[in-house]
Amino acid sequence: MSYLIEYEDASDEVREIYDDICAVRQTDYINNFWKAIANHPPTLHRTWQTVKEVMGSPGELDPLIRELIYIAVSVTNGCQYCIASHTAAAQAKGMSDEMFGELMAIVATANTTNRLANGYQIPIDEQFKI
Amino acid sequence: MSYLIEYEDASDEVREIYDDICAVRQTDYINNFWKAIANHPPTLHRTWQTVKEVMGSPGELDPLIRELIYIAVSVTNGCQYCIASHTAAAQAKGMSDEMFGELMAIVATANTTNRLANGYQIPIDEQFKI
Amino acid sequence: MSYLIEYEDASDEVREIYDDICAVRQTDYINNFWKAIANHPPTLHRTWQTVKEVMGSPGELDPLIRELIYIAVSVTNGCQYCIASHTAAAQAKGMSDEMFGELMAIVATANTTNRLANGYQIPIDEQFKI
Amino acid sequence: MSYLIEYEDASDEVREIYDDICAVRQTDYINNFWKAIANHPPTLHRTWQTVKEVMGSPGELDPLIRELIYIAVSVTNGCQYCIASHTAAAQAKGMSDEMFGELMAIVATANTTNRLANGYQIPIDEQFKI
Amino acid sequence: MSYLIEYEDASDEVREIYDDICAVRQTDYINNFWKAIANHPPTLHRTWQTVKEVMGSPGELDPLIRELIYIAVSVTNGCQYCIASHTAAAQAKGMSDEMFGELMAIVATANTTNRLANGYQIPIDEQFKI
Amino acid sequence: MSYLIEYEDASDEVREIYDDICAVRQTDYINNFWKAIANHPPTLHRTWQTVKEVMGSPGELDPLIRELIYIAVSVTNGCQYCIASHTAAAQAKGMSDEMFGELMAIVATANTTNRLANGYQIPIDEQFKI
Repeated sequence: MSYLIEYEDASDEVREIYDDICAVRQTDYINNFWKAIANHPPTLHRTWQTVKEVMGSPGELDPLIRELIYIAVSVTNGCQYCIASHTAAAQAKGMSDEMFGELMAIVATANTTNRLANGYQIPIDEQFKI
Repeated sequence: MSYLIEYEDASDEVREIYDDICAVRQTDYINNFWKAIANHPPTLHRTWQTVKEVMGSPGELDPLIRELIYIAVSVTNGCQYCIASHTAAAQAKGMSDEMFGELMAIVATANTTNRLANGYQIPIDEQFKI
Repeated sequence: MSYLIEYEDASDEVREIYDDICAVRQTDYINNFWKAIANHPPTLHRTWQTVKEVMGSPGELDPLIRELIYIAVSVTNGCQYCIASHTAAAQAKGMSDEMFGELMAIVATANTTNRLANGYQIPIDEQFKI
Repeated sequence: MSYLIEYEDASDEVREIYDDICAVRQTDYINNFWKAIANHPPTLHRTWQTVKEVMGSPGELDPLIRELIYIAVSVTNGCQYCIASHTAAAQAKGMSDEMFGELMAIVATANTTNRLANGYQIPIDEQFKI
Repeated sequence: MSYLIEYEDASDEVREIYDDICAVRQTDYINNFWKAIANHPPTLHRTWQTVKEVMGSPGELDPLIRELIYIAVSVTNGCQYCIASHTAAAQAKGMSDEMFGELMAIVATANTTNRLANGYQIPIDEQFKI
Repeated sequence: MSYLIEYEDASDEVREIYDDICAVRQTDYINNFWKAIANHPPTLHRTWQTVKEVMGSPGELDPLIRELIYIAVSVTNGCQYCIASHTAAAQAKGMSDEMFGELMAIVATANTTNRLANGYQIPIDEQFKI
């Protein structure tokens, strides 16, 4: 099910997306994630479009901050592949060891207070309501 | 279990922490989270020390970015109290609607790719390994 | 979908289980959980048998400890109904405020270290392997 | 990112914590968790203080019960490292195979009923409200 | 943050998507989900395109089965809004009470065995490897 | 803890269940899941009874659809063992690559909208309430 589709074995439709990934990321390496979801071309197409827009389009959050948020989600979900790939991506965009350490401290703390809020069944303060 | 301990009913030990919360946050409002966990003073003490340090000490991530990461975790875990309180906190620190929109888009996307990585049982690329 | 099936509206099959719940728990109150899943009698039957055995049969863990573990799972999952009902059950079995406080502290800490272990991609020590 | 900091390569600040871990646990083995988070000394310091207090300070829950709760959380979150290390810790503190079996049965059951409660959208009984 | 954008207050860009939702779903009711994410038009646009394709395009899984899978995920994550809205959607597409009961039973069982597999640290059988 | 109990080392009680698994599944292969939970015979007995009924008894959902739902839960929880074993089971029951692709697309999308619903704190529409 996770057969990885290499460029030379890919359909034209898939190759076009691989080419776009390489162009946008200025690399000639397609990582396993894309090669795996290429088994279902509509998923490959949709996912790449989404990732390209969400992580790369102009906006108020700079690219490194976006990667930190991505890691925070992946660590909370315990997704090993995404933790490994986005930690590498964040380092390539300038994440220092100190930044990673601060990020992990925040993720750890939020996971703690999330459970304290659940366990103590805390009612939302009026002023926090929308 | 979630009886909220008001300042006037609090022990000296708890009042001291409430005072510190107000001083650090420059407010006179203690939100329900602290009033609930005050039922177990060691948890109140430890949690406040941790939150104060992790969210407020000098570092490479600025305070607003820290709040965005906090929200990302809370949304992924589905903790309603923490989503409400930290969204309010982030707005107070300058989060714009556009920033919140970008944040949600990243959180949503990471939750998608986390599951695709799980489902396709994707092996970690050699170059992402540590 | 969560129409609650009252005793007077229940089939004989469902009533028999309601009777057993009341007998085992020495109460005449059927809580909403059972009334809801009674919409699918095989699920009611299976779930009650399982809960009765797992929470009530003789074993090495005493009944209060079993409730604490149940709460730990429910808080980690953020299931509001189960947190409320099992906190009440644990109190009925003798959980003190101090025990609840200690329980929450452990749950909070484990949720923190779980994420640090994920984020730092920590390899399992040889001696912990089975 | 998970480079493991050995004692001989550690700063004085980190060594002091390693020494305390060994003293408290009466061992001369520092497991990978601590060596990994030592990359961010404030996280190492805070996490060790928290774990030491929460798992080791006097209280109403005995040390083995605390480990069982820790395992319940780690299994629910699917954290492989924490499952392995805390199962080993619980065994060292006297967890029998029977106790582990009962623990798993409770964790499995709670995860089942948590989802039934979610899916049937069950309203909280008045008497369980706080 | 969850200010709901009504049709009359919406930009042309948002109205166009609202119109498409109504056309595709043959309704004149826009539910709160779309009105909320309309605060960030790129997210509204991307999410609607994705949902329209994934839930509505021709394929091997029929529309009701797709809703059942959607509910299974939402119940596992404990997302109250999504459970409520997709349960309603599934009923509109023909889900019977019996089908819902079977669905919940499977979701409950899978959540149980997922944790048993985690807790017992079960190695993947050779023949299940890909 | 995950010592796998082989048929020749099993008690009569466990062997009887192994025999039933083989008879029901028309195979002579007992997979590791059963061999591991056999360490706690009541859990083996209860889990097998539940799985046999939930996945195999007559009902409105056909066996392949039940496997797809099982995978959806396992992927959302990130349970590697269950993803591997139930993907194999689904393939054995006729799941095509296209069906798997559609399944993953739905799971990915639901995980995205679950988080958007959480983050935007969306109130449940009156008409979705039960």
